[in-house]
Amino acid sequence: MIYELYYWPGVQGRGEFIRLALEEGGAEYRDVALVPDSKGGGVAAILRMLAGRGVSRPPFAVPVLRAGRELIAQTANILLYLGGPLRLAPGDAAGRLWTHQLLLTILDLYQEIFSTHHPLGDGYAYEEQRAAARRRTRDFLRVRLPKFMSYFERVIEVNPGRGPWMVGARLSYADLSMAQVIAGLRYAFPRATARALRRRPRLAALHAAVFRRPRIARYLASGRRVPFNNEDLFRHYPALDR
Amino acid sequence: MIYELYYWPGVQGRGEFIRLALEEGGAEYRDVALVPDSKGGGVAAILRMLAGRGVSRPPFAVPVLRAGRELIAQTANILLYLGGPLRLAPGDAAGRLWTHQLLLTILDLYQEIFSTHHPLGDGYAYEEQRAAARRRTRDFLRVRLPKFMSYFERVIEVNPGRGPWMVGARLSYADLSMAQVIAGLRYAFPRATARALRRRPRLAALHAAVFRRPRIARYLASGRRVPFNNEDLFRHYPALDR
Repeated sequence: MIYELYYWPGVQGRGEFIRLALEEGGAEYRDVALVPDSKGGGVAAILRMLAGRGVSRPPFAVPVLRAGRELIAQTANILLYLGGPLRLAPGDAAGRLWTHQLLLTILDLYQEIFSTHHPLGDGYAYEEQRAAARRRTRDFLRVRLPKFMSYFERVIEVNPGRGPWMVGARLSYADLSMAQVIAGLRYAFPRATARALRRRPRLAALHAAVFRRPRIARYLASGRRVPFNNEDLFRHYPALDR
Repeated sequence: MIYELYYWPGVQGRGEFIRLALEEGGAEYRDVALVPDSKGGGVAAILRMLAGRGVSRPPFAVPVLRAGRELIAQTANILLYLGGPLRLAPGDAAGRLWTHQLLLTILDLYQEIFSTHHPLGDGYAYEEQRAAARRRTRDFLRVRLPKFMSYFERVIEVNPGRGPWMVGARLSYADLSMAQVIAGLRYAFPRATARALRRRPRLAALHAAVFRRPRIARYLASGRRVPFNNEDLFRHYPALDR
């Protein structure tokens, strides 16, 4: 099976959670945004897919994964689907639900990170909502980030499996996504994140262990991973990183 | 199986998506918040569960469903779990993923509705963020709500199954949750929602059909459904409903 991933070019965004799973799982996939227009790819192909002519189960937004004849959307849903074939989730039903539950909680944190710089939504540029962003970020760094980080630290701590992971003794897609959010937080809020990780050694170790995985390290070295940048969800505005 | 639902009393909140599924599915369940403290229920029981002593898979927040020895959290994850036994999702894997994908998109809309009155998060009271709420709501009602509503209207339209539903010919938990969000929007933004529904007859019909279901009608008539109120996620502030 050759998967096709539809996601906007130039940013990691939600697409990166899927890419990390595909890379670690050793899957063959086409990143449609990177395929030339002349070969049926690019932004035009994404817009055609989203227009969804003749599709009876249309997606609302990217990321979308094409797997054979199926179009699957919603980041958490795509990872739920990929967890089995890529061996990135436990085989039992309870373990699969637990991994999915963690992923949904990681995406809740991700959404709150977006709100730090766009509390009024993406209908307004950051420059139009700086004051609101400062207030939202203050609460995020003081209350919400520590609450999420302490929760995930505890998940690793009480996991009966050995090693640095959240679910049992093997790496899951929840670990990959957790590491990605930590990497993004280090970019967006280097000072606050360094402080938060100093007190949460298990999360720091998980982050390091994911980015040391041979396939993930190879992906980062390949130049295919889009660098963090301020058009993306993780943004570094020094005014917000107290 | 007698399920136990953990959710805060006094508001519908995310718990209501679970309640509607349990009611329509004819499940036996205990709403822990409504059980007296002296019988091991109430807010004290919720806090004890969230403290999670001795639990190896702790939840981050309510709603949480106890099903036998399992504790399942995250609204979408609980409905994914209940879809099978309550016959509120298709039996095939692709249909289950599609139903889950719709539910995740409905919850994205739900989260944006929360942000209309709390764009700076729940660290600040509404009264401390009125101006930001007005700006966020303006964009929500002009851009985001129509986009979501048109999408869900189209989902019903292109569904090959007959009838008012989103997934095939049978009611699913996605329909129940969609109807719940429409009911909440009618409470929070009566003018804007009436206008939006006039142009989306399929969504209006789905909403009516869900609340006409005998078990749902009985639940509403029982007095057990918490009325909409301004401590909840759906809030009616006339200043926000242009």
